Amino acid sequence: MKKPIRVAVTGAAGNIGYSLVFPIAAGDMLGKDQPVILQLVELPNAIQALHGVALELDDCAYPLLAGIEVADNSAAGFKDADVVMLVGAKPRGPGQTRADLIRDNGPIFTGQGDAIDQNAAPDVKVIVVGNPCNTNALIAASRARRTDKANYTAMTRLDQNRATGQIAKKLGIAPGAVRDTFIWGNHSDTMVPDFSKGYVLHGGEKKAIAEVVSSDWLATDFDKTVRTRGKAIIDARGKSSAASAAQAAMDHIHDWFLGTGDNTVVSMAVPSDGSYGIPEGLVYSFPVRITAPWKYEIIQGLPIDAAMQARIDNSTKELLAEREAVKDLL
Amino acid sequence: MKKPIRVAVTGAAGNIGYSLVFPIAAGDMLGKDQPVILQLVELPNAIQALHGVALELDDCAYPLLAGIEVADNSAAGFKDADVVMLVGAKPRGPGQTRADLIRDNGPIFTGQGDAIDQNAAPDVKVIVVGNPCNTNALIAASRARRTDKANYTAMTRLDQNRATGQIAKKLGIAPGAVRDTFIWGNHSDTMVPDFSKGYVLHGGEKKAIAEVVSSDWLATDFDKTVRTRGKAIIDARGKSSAASAAQAAMDHIHDWFLGTGDNTVVSMAVPSDGSYGIPEGLVYSFPVRITAPWKYEIIQGLPIDAAMQARIDNSTKELLAEREAVKDLL
Repeated sequence: MKKPIRVAVTGAAGNIGYSLVFPIAAGDMLGKDQPVILQLVELPNAIQALHGVALELDDCAYPLLAGIEVADNSAAGFKDADVVMLVGAKPRGPGQTRADLIRDNGPIFTGQGDAIDQNAAPDVKVIVVGNPCNTNALIAASRARRTDKANYTAMTRLDQNRATGQIAKKLGIAPGAVRDTFIWGNHSDTMVPDFSKGYVLHGGEKKAIAEVVSSDWLATDFDKTVRTRGKAIIDARGKSSAASAAQAAMDHIHDWFLGTGDNTVVSMAVPSDGSYGIPEGLVYSFPVRITAPWKYEIIQGLPIDAAMQARIDNSTKELLAEREAVKDLL
Repeated sequence: MKKPIRVAVTGAAGNIGYSLVFPIAAGDMLGKDQPVILQLVELPNAIQALHGVALELDDCAYPLLAGIEVADNSAAGFKDADVVMLVGAKPRGPGQTRADLIRDNGPIFTGQGDAIDQNAAPDVKVIVVGNPCNTNALIAASRARRTDKANYTAMTRLDQNRATGQIAKKLGIAPGAVRDTFIWGNHSDTMVPDFSKGYVLHGGEKKAIAEVVSSDWLATDFDKTVRTRGKAIIDARGKSSAASAAQAAMDHIHDWFLGTGDNTVVSMAVPSDGSYGIPEGLVYSFPVRITAPWKYEIIQGLPIDAAMQARIDNSTKELLAEREAVKDLL
């Protein structure tokens, strides 16, 4: 039996958390032969509900679930964690701007960054799901002393999955046949869905996406649908995306650990190393490949046309403004 | 690529439904190489929310999800379905007795039984999750003309999983090491958790549960915890079990289709063939083994002591009274 992997999840009794922790325990994220210890973290006022979640996890009798720990603070919750999933965040209140939200969440993520750096495993891997996730990850990463800043990431996989799903639906094919569409930039409406390197598998043959779908649709409906999907879900469900966000968070960690099997491109927001001229340290969504367990590599040398470059610059500008807004926390 | 299996789910936008349909699409229920078409059914007033669920399913880009259909009526929703999961049911209202609930749900399940028999695949497999699930399944099965009554089942796997989880927790071992504990009778507080044939695997050795756990605990805390767990979850979460119920429903169908791998005993409420003196036709939870895909067999000849027999008789009596209460619907 393999050594269990310790996975800490904040906001574990929230809607995304509730969609996330059961399939993690079932082995969907780290593999069907990988035991897991769940370290569930919630605010003190949600601890009773979290105990209910823990009871239900017991009730599933998951063969791979080697332990459940419940904590009302990050220091205890992140102890020895191998993976930390920062799902909990203050949601945007009525009339709040994105800037207000960033200021509100900033101090939460300095605290969580400190708690990770001081308590988690030294090679801990972090994904921030709580919004604004890129800048929250930037803040948390800024506290890293003992741990590796490169391992502080944010989730744009949901955006990639949405893009993939839209193309599959348009073509009436299985999403598994749509490859290498990915996201640049910020997880916000400045994000840049990039299908220019994408292709579909059709009867064993590779066809460029631009060859099989109309460029009009890609430039208009597709782009808008992907960028504004969050609101469409809220309008239909009366609640924000939960199961699809949880699935994307699992996909992010799954692929980071286990790879994609076929070396396809995945989107991860990671601290920039300067690739593609993105200012160093900004947590930016890039096309990456997984080269070994827990090793990602930003794919280099992709051609970028002027229109795409302008949009990438626009998302960079937004992230620089977000960094400026929290500079006293960094 | 295998032919997709069509899975219809009622109450698909409800809490259990929301915990159920995503992992089905991910391949957790029918296997990681088995394409699935989801046929999601809701009441007309929940159709908008259900469309939101369908959007989120698109957004997960599940490679195995070969189609999503949304229906506001059972006839359309069950068309050609290979598996029907009857999750939706009217919940118990304030001051309602179990008898009231049975009368309220009865007509829903005659309608759904007709819709299955007239529209689903001839060898359709049915699981009833909505309570009172045994008698709801009895009602639905009573409409079977073209389809096979033996394939109308109800869920007691959640109770079995709870029993397994409790024993694992008591011993501080992984739930996967606890085998062959199962449930007799009705999914109600007359259910009979049976650990007398159960064992744990300890360093490769089989030990009877009664050998490793105190009989006092088994007769008191264990028994009560399993039988009243639903209420404990509601007290903690403020909501009834959803993710654990969804997981158990998937376990039920997973094992029925794919077996347990090691021939362990599972609990399924199935139409009695007279085994153990249970009146024929009552949908009763028995210990079963899966002998081939979609073939269950009630395990015969298990010894039953007088105390256990008295409890089994009590659960039978309750199910006979439930049948009597809906006899005009059968």
